[in-house]
Parts: sequence; C-alpha cells; structure tokens
Amino acid sequence: MTNRTDAAVLLIGDELLAGRTRDSNLAHIAVALGEIGIPVREARIVADSEAEIVEALDALRGRYAFVFTTGGIGPTHDDITADCVAKAFGVRLVEHPEALARLEAHYGPERFNAARRRMARVPEGAELIDNPVSVAPGFRVGNVFVMAGIPVVMQAMLESVKGSLPGGPAIATHVVLAAGPEGDLAAPLGAIQARYPELAIGSYPSLSGGRIVTRLVARGADASAVAAARDEIAAMVDRLGFTLPG
Amino acid sequence: MTNRTDAAVLLIGDELLAGRTRDSNLAHIAVALGEIGIPVREARIVADSEAEIVEALDALRGRYAFVFTTGGIGPTHDDITADCVAKAFGVRLVEHPEALARLEAHYGPERFNAARRRMARVPEGAELIDNPVSVAPGFRVGNVFVMAGIPVVMQAMLESVKGSLPGGPAIATHVVLAAGPEGDLAAPLGAIQARYPELAIGSYPSLSGGRIVTRLVARGADASAVAAARDEIAAMVDRLGFTLPG
Repeated sequence: MTNRTDAAVLLIGDELLAGRTRDSNLAHIAVALGEIGIPVREARIVADSEAEIVEALDALRGRYAFVFTTGGIGPTHDDITADCVAKAFGVRLVEHPEALARLEAHYGPERFNAARRRMARVPEGAELIDNPVSVAPGFRVGNVFVMAGIPVVMQAMLESVKGSLPGGPAIATHVVLAAGPEGDLAAPLGAIQARYPELAIGSYPSLSGGRIVTRLVARGADASAVAAARDEIAAMVDRLGFTLPG
Repeated sequence: MTNRTDAAVLLIGDELLAGRTRDSNLAHIAVALGEIGIPVREARIVADSEAEIVEALDALRGRYAFVFTTGGIGPTHDDITADCVAKAFGVRLVEHPEALARLEAHYGPERFNAARRRMARVPEGAELIDNPVSVAPGFRVGNVFVMAGIPVVMQAMLESVKGSLPGGPAIATHVVLAAGPEGDLAAPLGAIQARYPELAIGSYPSLSGGRIVTRLVARGADASAVAAARDEIAAMVDRLGFTLPG
C-alpha cells in the first residue's frame, strides 16, 4: 500500500453473477469516492465462495489504497464475508461487544436468535461502520471496508466512513455529447488526448432508436485542464456538425 | 483450461468505473450463458489501461473455460482491447482480410478512414464474430471472446457465438419471495441448504418502501433437486407466515 488514494470495489454475491440482480452499488460508490478524490480503478464481482472472496480481497488490498466490499454480511448461511476477511488478514473472527450490544438492544431477547448473532462477528481488531438503517454494522479492517449489499444500507455506511478517508483533489468530469459516429470523431479526439496526456479522455457511443449519440468524456484531477479539454472537444464536435440541438 | 464449462466476464471501460454508466452487459451475458449451462463464476471491471486489461485477461483465461469481454473495440484512441488480447496471447496484431473487406464495403471509400480501419485489427489467428448491427466484428482467440460494449451490438455478437459453445445442462433457478427478514429465515434455510449440498441456495433481502422482501433462490444443474428445494423453501416460508399475498 502506497500513499496513493485510489480504491477497488469488490461486489460479493451469486445473484449478481446469475444475472438476476443488476448491481447499483458500484456506480454509487464510484461517484461518491470520485467526489472526494478517490478514483475507483477496478471492480470485481465474485460468488459467495470463500476461496474466491479471499483471493480477490488479497489481490485488491495489496494493490489499491482502499477496498470497499458489498454483500455477504447478513445472518444467513451464504453470508460469509466476515469469515473471508478474517481469513485474508490472518486474524480470528470474534464477537464485537459493541456490535453485540447494538443488535441485542435492537432485536430484544425474543428476536435475537443465533442467526442474528452471527452479524456481531468481525475480524479481530476491526472497527465498526455504523448502520443507521438496519443496525447490523459493517466494519473496517486495515484498508478494507466491509459494507452491506442492500443499496440503501450500503449508501448509509459509505456516508458514515467518507469523512475519515484522506482523499485527493476531486476528480473533475465534463461530458460533451456528439450526434455522430466514433469513426469521424476518432482522429481529432485522439489529437486532443495527445495534448492533455494527464487527462483520461474517453468516447462512449450508444445507439438509441437507430440514432448514434457518442458521449465524449474528459476526466482528471486538474479542473482547469478538464475544462479546457472540454472546450476543445465541444469546438471539434461543432466543426464536424455533430452538435446536438439544445 | 479444463473441460469445465464455466465462464468469466471482463467489462472494459473507464466509464463503468467512474460510475457514470451502469453496466447491463454482465446480466445479459450471465442469463444467456446460464440458459446453455455455462455459469459465470466471476466478473471484473477494468479501466482502458493496457497493463490492467492484459493482467485480467491472463488471470481469467487461465482459470475459466471461457472469457467474454465487452468494450474497447471501436475506432478511438481509448479502444485498446485488440492490442491487449494480442499481447496477452503473445501474438501479433494483424489486419483481418475479411474484417477489412466488410468495413470497406460498409463505409465506402469516402468514410473508410484510418480510425475505422483500426477496427479490422485482430490478434493473429483470431476468428471473427459477426456484427449484424454495425458491421465492425468482434473476434475469438483461444477461449477469449471479444465483443463490443454497446449492449445491442454485444447481444447480437453473443447470439452469433452461443451456438458454437459446448454447454452443460441448463442451470435451473427457482425463486421464492418471503415477506420477512433474513434473521427469521436463516436457520430453516440453512437446514434446507444442508440437505441439498449440490445446489446454491441464496438469500437476498431488499427494502422497498420500508417493507422487507427477501428473495430466496435455489440454483443448480439438477432441475428436479432445484424444484424440490423450492418446494421446501416455499413450505418453510408459509410456516413462518411470510408468504406474500398472490
């Protein structure tokens, strides 16, 4: 781990790989972290399988400043993320007294069964991440932040840890839409990229109703360079006659 | 590579990691491959960066029977997937005569510029994947299938290769919805999973309008076991009083 401030996202869950559930957590995390200057460089989606979760955790936590996981911290048999994080860090899985207290208070003696008690288990040394929505906490160990999979819960957890992250300058993004195909935009766009090597300039075509719209995106930490590149892109699009009617 | 029939998906593109674009290709690929008995075991999302694409390709193609990539095969400077696949396989990048002929015929001499000509480049030895939507082909090298990022184009490419894949038995899936929290479902659901070790039984809670609905999913290649597990899950949900009104 270096002093870089970047991140990876690890989405955990068979359902995402079965194609039955479309993830929305990655986009939310990426936008939220981008705003505080932490670019998401990679994401992985793995099944509820110990070997695969541990391997992905180890690969990502060694390479990026922060790793954010979603999913697998509930009370059912397929919720094995805490076990896997403990294994990846080579520490024991223990009951966190504060997590236990919060869960007991929330559910009361009648409803606080063995399954719910599993949600108090964290890798030894973990710090809790508050869950203002449904109580059962996430946790942080080292550079790994373990969050729920339910979007509204994940978003609340992310909100509660964002303030503690040492971000960089916010990543500025400008988008220019072009009513024309990439093949006509490619050469002048490549020339603009060459003039702004510190920015990531991308081209993302889409077809809707038989009409081509290409999103031209400039991103980078230097907001004035991003704005200048955006102006050049817009002028180029105009020159080609691809400006979209306002 | 073994005789297993499983797959990984590699989604390529800065936009997905910036959170501006939500991917829909993974879900489509997972459902389509699931129908022909090829489970998707892992997915990765990487930026338009050579080192990261090559590394992900190498990790995934060694581990899974098939790898399906989306994105990065257009005409712009950030379209570097073909270069990366050639590098991963250690072969040269060459112009494919048939791809060149299709692109020339489609665009005509006026519009067939250097940028569009880039889309004829494939790793040496690659077979083309037809693109009935916008002509520029995808390609297959070894166990890697390289497809476009635009969903409608990707879907057409996948359709054109599906027939050539040696799948296994289709993966059967049954879903039971429960109007109750995972903490109450966990113990009996775990007992059902223990009776059907060959199936993947998962629990996916969601909150909508303050109401908890938990999706209980049984999946596996043995359709009759999946149906039997589904019946046990439905009976258990009913016993707990969590059956959703039809």
